[in-house]
Amino acid sequence: MRLKKVKGAKEKIEKSPYLIKDPSTHRGKFNKLFNNSNPIRVEIGMGKGNFILNNALKYPNINFIGIEKYDSVLVRAVEKIEEQNIDIPNLKLICMDASLIDTVFKNEIDVIFLNFSDPWPKNRHENRRLTSPIFLDKYKNLFKGERKIILKTDNRKFFEYSITSFSEHGYQIKDISLNLNEDNDPLNIKTEYEEKFSLKGLSIYKLEVMQKR
Amino acid sequence: MRLKKVKGAKEKIEKSPYLIKDPSTHRGKFNKLFNNSNPIRVEIGMGKGNFILNNALKYPNINFIGIEKYDSVLVRAVEKIEEQNIDIPNLKLICMDASLIDTVFKNEIDVIFLNFSDPWPKNRHENRRLTSPIFLDKYKNLFKGERKIILKTDNRKFFEYSITSFSEHGYQIKDISLNLNEDNDPLNIKTEYEEKFSLKGLSIYKLEVMQKR
Repeated sequence: MRLKKVKGAKEKIEKSPYLIKDPSTHRGKFNKLFNNSNPIRVEIGMGKGNFILNNALKYPNINFIGIEKYDSVLVRAVEKIEEQNIDIPNLKLICMDASLIDTVFKNEIDVIFLNFSDPWPKNRHENRRLTSPIFLDKYKNLFKGERKIILKTDNRKFFEYSITSFSEHGYQIKDISLNLNEDNDPLNIKTEYEEKFSLKGLSIYKLEVMQKR
Repeated sequence: MRLKKVKGAKEKIEKSPYLIKDPSTHRGKFNKLFNNSNPIRVEIGMGKGNFILNNALKYPNINFIGIEKYDSVLVRAVEKIEEQNIDIPNLKLICMDASLIDTVFKNEIDVIFLNFSDPWPKNRHENRRLTSPIFLDKYKNLFKGERKIILKTDNRKFFEYSITSFSEHGYQIKDISLNLNEDNDPLNIKTEYEEKFSLKGLSIYKLEVMQKR
């Protein structure tokens, strides 16, 4: 994503009641933070927040945490959430780099969502891809039960890479769509990117993988 | 494939020195038939034979066996082979239904190729798909070492089905292409179908899966 600096973004985010300020202090105890024992689903790279916000509104009995690195992007999500003019108790945000995820969660996540992640197409940047072995190792102890990851992307090479990477890491491919638009899944919640790509008629790829613990 | 009856097809095939007439009598001993210890690669549903013939010509140190159910299709392959006007000792043909494959081979195959297999799109026909659990069970004891299957198709739904079926059956996805034309693999050998589809610019999907024994 190309980034424009947004003035006052950091301050605005830090004022938001949705932001978790010291996420690692809640490690292993995020259910306490939500004050319930509902499942916790995490989107890494939530961008401007459409996906996680609409999930939280649609599924009030599931907790959602969105992670985003850039405050100038996250601030757009904060604004969108504020525009709802309602309290959304099952939604929280974290502003951090994805590589820190294993310092923040432990045995408590139900599903990880990876939506339109940066494909890092160059071989020498493989380790930065959110589906590289490095990241799959980081995800290893985050889940409460079986490990479940749901990925969407429009990038063919990143999608192909992710399939073999998950498979070689012991994940099973549970579901796959090579043209999510055409499949017309009524349960699909679109990201901002996806909305744009779909209108252009481009292929959206989707993958659900699972691993027993 | 739509089929036209070809008059005299059966007789012509049976006269061919490439045809293995009683394949199950060679079970576990196909290397003897080839009179060498080279790897044996099998294409199930070889159609008119371009793929298996060109493989045999390109890789003289590998043995190839093509299986085809319909004599009116196989006869076209026999004609193509005859047109070469050379002896191709590393190529053999079997005329039989794929469901019999486990009565014919045992611990001797190196790779199975599935090219543009019938997708059997209706749910009630799932068991006829060459990548259904029924068939994957049949393939179980055919391989000499690790199980390796290479699949090409233009049918998205069959491809998606095959990926999850292999994965749930314990196969690893080793390589995948969602657009074989675009990837321009110089080693790719095209089937008759593939040639046509490629010219129309349609997506060809390719999958390589592996399972340790």
